[in-house]
Amino acid sequence: MAVYTEVTDDALRAFLREYAIGDLVAFRGIAEGVENSNYSLKTSTGDFILTLYEKRVDPAELPWFLGLMEHLAKRGIVCPLPVAGRDGAALRMLAGRHAAITTFLPGVWPRRVQLEHCAPVGAALAALHRAGADYAPERRNALGPSGWAPLLARGLADGGAAADAVHPGLGAELQRALAGILAAWPGALPRGHIHADLFPDNVFFLDGRLSGLIDFYFAATDLLAYDIAVCLNAWCFEPDLSFNVTKARAMLRAYAATRPLAAAELSALPVLCQGAAIRFALTRLYDWINTPPGALVTRKDPMEYVRRLRFFLTAPDVFADAV
Amino acid sequence: MAVYTEVTDDALRAFLREYAIGDLVAFRGIAEGVENSNYSLKTSTGDFILTLYEKRVDPAELPWFLGLMEHLAKRGIVCPLPVAGRDGAALRMLAGRHAAITTFLPGVWPRRVQLEHCAPVGAALAALHRAGADYAPERRNALGPSGWAPLLARGLADGGAAADAVHPGLGAELQRALAGILAAWPGALPRGHIHADLFPDNVFFLDGRLSGLIDFYFAATDLLAYDIAVCLNAWCFEPDLSFNVTKARAMLRAYAATRPLAAAELSALPVLCQGAAIRFALTRLYDWINTPPGALVTRKDPMEYVRRLRFFLTAPDVFADAV
Repeated sequence: MAVYTEVTDDALRAFLREYAIGDLVAFRGIAEGVENSNYSLKTSTGDFILTLYEKRVDPAELPWFLGLMEHLAKRGIVCPLPVAGRDGAALRMLAGRHAAITTFLPGVWPRRVQLEHCAPVGAALAALHRAGADYAPERRNALGPSGWAPLLARGLADGGAAADAVHPGLGAELQRALAGILAAWPGALPRGHIHADLFPDNVFFLDGRLSGLIDFYFAATDLLAYDIAVCLNAWCFEPDLSFNVTKARAMLRAYAATRPLAAAELSALPVLCQGAAIRFALTRLYDWINTPPGALVTRKDPMEYVRRLRFFLTAPDVFADAV
Repeated sequence: MAVYTEVTDDALRAFLREYAIGDLVAFRGIAEGVENSNYSLKTSTGDFILTLYEKRVDPAELPWFLGLMEHLAKRGIVCPLPVAGRDGAALRMLAGRHAAITTFLPGVWPRRVQLEHCAPVGAALAALHRAGADYAPERRNALGPSGWAPLLARGLADGGAAADAVHPGLGAELQRALAGILAAWPGALPRGHIHADLFPDNVFFLDGRLSGLIDFYFAATDLLAYDIAVCLNAWCFEPDLSFNVTKARAMLRAYAATRPLAAAELSALPVLCQGAAIRFALTRLYDWINTPPGALVTRKDPMEYVRRLRFFLTAPDVFADAV
């Protein structure tokens, strides 16, 4: 769930006085999201989202995230638009946390991914990549390839016993796979700003159309095609973890129709997909090992991404005729 | 948090077709509530709450709860009004759960209780008790006095080791207190339908006024003054667990101004407050012992209510001049 910080009535009232968005009508915690505290905020002028940034987000990076969202929204990407206070600032403090109000997006995230979702996601991702091209500031991808070896080392800090408790031999399997991925990692592909976490719960649909993208707090500057690989991992596996190549083709073709893919990007997709799979396997493994009993966050099974990783390690030609 | 059951897009669409409340605009999980799955539902006609009833609620009792809310709402109590489908039924099935849509109430629950909240809560509770008087069906209070000894026995099923791990001697202390409470429990006080869980997170305020009461799924037929005792426990202790008699007086006087309190009710308040304290201490103890690691629900400290219990055990005259 996603309410880590409670906001007192007085603090909320004082905070809202800094904005010209009308009078408070309702304020409810939102269950979705795992990194920050999110509240649904209704005022006499409409609906908003209030986000309190929790400890995983570096405050120094918040202007970059909010600036990117504002930049993208102005270029037609349907994403939360930071709402400025009366003094022009969108990033403020509330309840001891950095906080921002953003616009509310209509839509519902798909609990069960269907084929018809995949092309709109590919097209939206390509549009996001294009719209971000002239956002000048960059953000290093802390959860990109250079972060994976340290992350794995932290997951195996006990000599690998906890990882082996998740699955026998898991530590050694991840070390072997990571070495191969890093050795094969492409260096010269087109770079830009990537969402880096465009999972189904971050994409809204309404009446069969994609109606919005949310949660830009993993966004960073990295290989654009790596963002596609994240989406292929997140959207194109069935509940039994079999890969649905029809969904992948729909996503890739829709992407390429908006932003043509270079041959080098296409040929790198298998290793990029291995990388995206190991990235989520590693953070899930770390969280699995380190989530205390009774924690607010549900632990997600790292093996779901280990199995994706195994698939991409053994299917080098899966994207051969994809676009 | 409070989303235990995920609803697929197709299931939600089909469900909403059974209602005449407009087209789907948004659907988000709500973090508040611990018993059921709650979603904020926005349609082209307005805001609603969709509740999926989870395993702690007996489906056979749902018509009683929904009927009570409808009865109270029609008599001017601002509480969620069940919304009937096109066929007239408010109680339906969704995602394998019993489910209902209710109206959305404006307001914000007070994260920090102030003196000015307490009189409105007392007045609203009295109004609820009066409005419920002509709702004929009854519901036994499973978490009333007759349920406390079995609940304690379940909490001490391991011989009391887990309870003693919470606090040394806790099992014996609770057994001793419960025997005294049950021996002194009043039998002949006015009865009616009680909310039984009117904690701050179930009461909304807007612009300094009480704007709604929610979460009637512990409501039952029991001593009306016991409901006051629940509120005295929930609203009149400071964060350091000292009792604020000024808040208690404000609540009791506002209550009595709407529904006069009999002398027998007033004189029974200390033992009723002991009962209300042990009721929440017992359910919290049971949940504390039985909440698995990584569960969605945050465990609440049973000692907060053991300390309230100790206070009421040692302050028999605290309500002497309260009304």
